[in-house]
Amino acid sequence: MKIAVLGTGMVGDTIGSKLIELGHEVKMGSRTAGNEKAMAWVSKHKKNASEGTFEDAAKFGEIVFNCTNGMGSLEALKQAGASNLQGKVMIDISNPLDFSKGMPPSLSVCNTSSLGEEIQKSFPEVKVVKALNTLNCSLMVNPGSLAGGDHNIFICGNDEGAKKQAKDLLEQFGWKSNAIIDLGDITAARGTEMILPIWLRLMGTLGSPAFNFKIVRN
Amino acid sequence: MKIAVLGTGMVGDTIGSKLIELGHEVKMGSRTAGNEKAMAWVSKHKKNASEGTFEDAAKFGEIVFNCTNGMGSLEALKQAGASNLQGKVMIDISNPLDFSKGMPPSLSVCNTSSLGEEIQKSFPEVKVVKALNTLNCSLMVNPGSLAGGDHNIFICGNDEGAKKQAKDLLEQFGWKSNAIIDLGDITAARGTEMILPIWLRLMGTLGSPAFNFKIVRN
Repeated sequence: MKIAVLGTGMVGDTIGSKLIELGHEVKMGSRTAGNEKAMAWVSKHKKNASEGTFEDAAKFGEIVFNCTNGMGSLEALKQAGASNLQGKVMIDISNPLDFSKGMPPSLSVCNTSSLGEEIQKSFPEVKVVKALNTLNCSLMVNPGSLAGGDHNIFICGNDEGAKKQAKDLLEQFGWKSNAIIDLGDITAARGTEMILPIWLRLMGTLGSPAFNFKIVRN
Repeated sequence: MKIAVLGTGMVGDTIGSKLIELGHEVKMGSRTAGNEKAMAWVSKHKKNASEGTFEDAAKFGEIVFNCTNGMGSLEALKQAGASNLQGKVMIDISNPLDFSKGMPPSLSVCNTSSLGEEIQKSFPEVKVVKALNTLNCSLMVNPGSLAGGDHNIFICGNDEGAKKQAKDLLEQFGWKSNAIIDLGDITAARGTEMILPIWLRLMGTLGSPAFNFKIVRN
């Protein structure tokens, strides 16, 4: 499958590399073509990896991963272009973490909305699925490395077919079907994004990002 | 030990009853003495249970549990009286859930502050420990009923001695020492209170409040 990965940070690099390992063709998008980190990522892979602008990547991908910095996501997606994204499934991993006032970061949107919802509102013809924003990127693509995969991730979005496609990709990443909890429509992104403050605090307390939430039930 | 339980709702009733079962003397406080729910709670217990105003309870307790509705907590604590609370440990279970604009509730304070912090700021001579606000009240006092207690709660607060006293009480409730994660100072209450939106969503998705978070680490 042809997949766009928007963003050249750790998350984009990790997701893009896993998708290539799985046999997909991936174009990494950034503000400008020839971005240094995007070029380095392309050169790590023998085939199926390319890079370009957000617009190039959005045109290329049948599915789009939003791995951009949350504070710049809406602007990046505008550059990608609504017409290039139209009708496509977008797996939104971004978090609206605002570091501009120092540590700890606050959320630039929360409580009565979320970045997932803002993206869906700004791009009504995109099928946004919020997923994977609640854990470290190395665990996103290798869940079995932690407790044999016995922990949870959450998905939400307004389009059932899009969630099914997202779930299929997550299962390719190694997630067991019953580890993926569908929280319903995109408004649930408030809940998953608002986990970030305790996630960051736990990372400090535990001294490592190698942890995840498990929902324990009887 | 003499303990004040402020609030006559499900949480206050459950916490108060557990404390009596453990052999403590408990006074339940509410806006007015003779509150119907407080009287019903007193009559359930053969001894060690009494009720009165927030002020009566605060005077009585060596330790105070804040089980009031989060939207009314600051007002209830003002009624309890700063001088009656001074120097005491307060275990704050409240959540700032605002149902005034319908469902889902929003948080009346979050992101750059928390109800735990607001209480600590308003009552600087009280030793506030935020705890137990992230799970259903029946699990608070009976953690072993879910997966043999293999799940987590969080505490935070500015006073180490107060956190030790809170932890001792939580262990009396049945929590294993290593299930209680100390997140540091009271600003971590942002993190634990901001879990509420996903908690509420999970309750809807799972159809039950009988679940809890476990932090999975290698």
